[in-house]
Amino acid sequence: MNTQLLLNERPVGFPSEQVWKLEKSEVPEPGEGQLVAKVLYVSLDPAMRGWINDAKSYVPPVQIDEVMRAGGVGKVVSSKHPKYNVGDYVYGMTGIQEYCLTDGHGWVKVDPTLLPLPRYLGTLGMPGFTAYFGLLDVLKPQEGQTVLVSGAAGAVGSVVGQIAKIKGCRVVGIAGGSEKCRYVVDELGFDACIDYKNDNVYKGIKEHCPNKVDMYFDNVGGEILDMALAHINRGARIAICGAISQYNNKENVKGPANYLSLLVNGATMEGFVVIQFTSRYGEAAKQLGQWTAEGKIKSREHIEKGIENFYPTFQKLFSGEKKGKLVLQIAEDV
Amino acid sequence: MNTQLLLNERPVGFPSEQVWKLEKSEVPEPGEGQLVAKVLYVSLDPAMRGWINDAKSYVPPVQIDEVMRAGGVGKVVSSKHPKYNVGDYVYGMTGIQEYCLTDGHGWVKVDPTLLPLPRYLGTLGMPGFTAYFGLLDVLKPQEGQTVLVSGAAGAVGSVVGQIAKIKGCRVVGIAGGSEKCRYVVDELGFDACIDYKNDNVYKGIKEHCPNKVDMYFDNVGGEILDMALAHINRGARIAICGAISQYNNKENVKGPANYLSLLVNGATMEGFVVIQFTSRYGEAAKQLGQWTAEGKIKSREHIEKGIENFYPTFQKLFSGEKKGKLVLQIAEDV
Repeated sequence: MNTQLLLNERPVGFPSEQVWKLEKSEVPEPGEGQLVAKVLYVSLDPAMRGWINDAKSYVPPVQIDEVMRAGGVGKVVSSKHPKYNVGDYVYGMTGIQEYCLTDGHGWVKVDPTLLPLPRYLGTLGMPGFTAYFGLLDVLKPQEGQTVLVSGAAGAVGSVVGQIAKIKGCRVVGIAGGSEKCRYVVDELGFDACIDYKNDNVYKGIKEHCPNKVDMYFDNVGGEILDMALAHINRGARIAICGAISQYNNKENVKGPANYLSLLVNGATMEGFVVIQFTSRYGEAAKQLGQWTAEGKIKSREHIEKGIENFYPTFQKLFSGEKKGKLVLQIAEDV
Repeated sequence: MNTQLLLNERPVGFPSEQVWKLEKSEVPEPGEGQLVAKVLYVSLDPAMRGWINDAKSYVPPVQIDEVMRAGGVGKVVSSKHPKYNVGDYVYGMTGIQEYCLTDGHGWVKVDPTLLPLPRYLGTLGMPGFTAYFGLLDVLKPQEGQTVLVSGAAGAVGSVVGQIAKIKGCRVVGIAGGSEKCRYVVDELGFDACIDYKNDNVYKGIKEHCPNKVDMYFDNVGGEILDMALAHINRGARIAICGAISQYNNKENVKGPANYLSLLVNGATMEGFVVIQFTSRYGEAAKQLGQWTAEGKIKSREHIEKGIENFYPTFQKLFSGEKKGKLVLQIAEDV
């Protein structure tokens, strides 16, 4: 049998456990040009919160009774697809289920002998690509500039900061809690990290960015975005990658009250989603793989187990009780 | 004697009449390298509201007991400056006063036989330059794209829209009241104009921008900025030129709650001030002068008279009870 996590109802505010339901069905059989993958790991990302709103966005909303959307890695167990054979390891939008039937559109093979499989959901996957294009193509850092990154211990922010260090920038992170801040500075090599749960972020930015902020990579929105705006340089650039502080609001998103700092500083705020860069994923994967092999980019994954633990794991995305890229293991690779 | 308008106190919210005071002093005499101009016309602009806040910005705040900052045109009445002779007509930051002593830094000569003097405070001055660089350098319109402009009947917005028409765009304005909207469409040649005082702006944008908004030139901020954000295309560009709806807030500016539309659309919001482009004012003046001579750009000025009428004239900036660029005549040119 195949166990699937389906969207059960649309949430208002923070999703309750009833927003999803588990259902059993037959394991599918591939038709011509299709394959079935046994799902091993799925990626849990803040963007999931947006996908279950009934709102126009960069992808259509997940519908009620549809399998919850997720990227995942799996192993092909049956195939009538010309490119994929039984035993191949694959990345694709598997959804949260034990077995995934697909025509392979947008899927790629991954190599478990090169890197642990969960890394293809983190640094060598969408979060890493998001960091790569968001920093290099949207912000375009130059040596000696100051880059501020929120969500600095997260799957995206941790890679943003490490690439910015490779590019010769001063890099200051913002993360929640002293353990994460120590990790960001001691393990990842950021120049400083501000603990938003215990420190005054406004003063922290002022102290650690003595030449002000040339670039801000925003994963969180809300008050931290406003504090960053209060410290930008002339001609600064801000990349809007996410706004995790706002995703569960029951009413309006809090817009950045300091946005007129863009005006007085001739600064730019640019939003992006990684799928704008689909045609260049290969370039990102190659470069991130090389930096990983050279030890210039470090990663960690926080792995929970069992499809039945989706909900408590999802909660950790927003509580911050996780260390590294959040991944749910659906099955053992046997 | 010289009558000067001085900053008397700092306002909270909308400035009361007591924020400024008139004082008499001796008419100044030029020292070596200086000139004295008799001020004929001064420009009243929404940016003035920002200049009297005690806040860091792109220019230092006007200090208490300082002459109120303003651009103006005048006639040289005495000169020990090598470039200027008595009788020359000049543009510069005259301030609101009858006679201005200056070293001429940043001043230019203007020609009253070419254009009426008040136009050098509008289309051929800072508002026109703001429109020119904000549209052509910040937004970079291309033929066939849709440009939305707020404050469309104002000194900046009216020029933005007319240049966008010259560049082959579909141009939709937003202005307050049916008279202004008629002016914008019938006289200035915009394709449509939405009356924010009487129409539903959200529906108006939807109706008049059937291919959505590729570029939005924002002079107003607040809810109209949010409504524009709700209708942007992928890759859209927004220029933040002003936020007149927010300048007199007693508490925080209302940030754009729909700013995550930048994210899902891969769109950009860029702030600017015209002084970023100081080195290219000559280019703008030449081109705007040519378009004016060719009848491709039309302008009108709303002229009030008398330095003692500064305050009721200033009020018109925010009430919208004006037709065209707001100018205060300080003296007759005799």
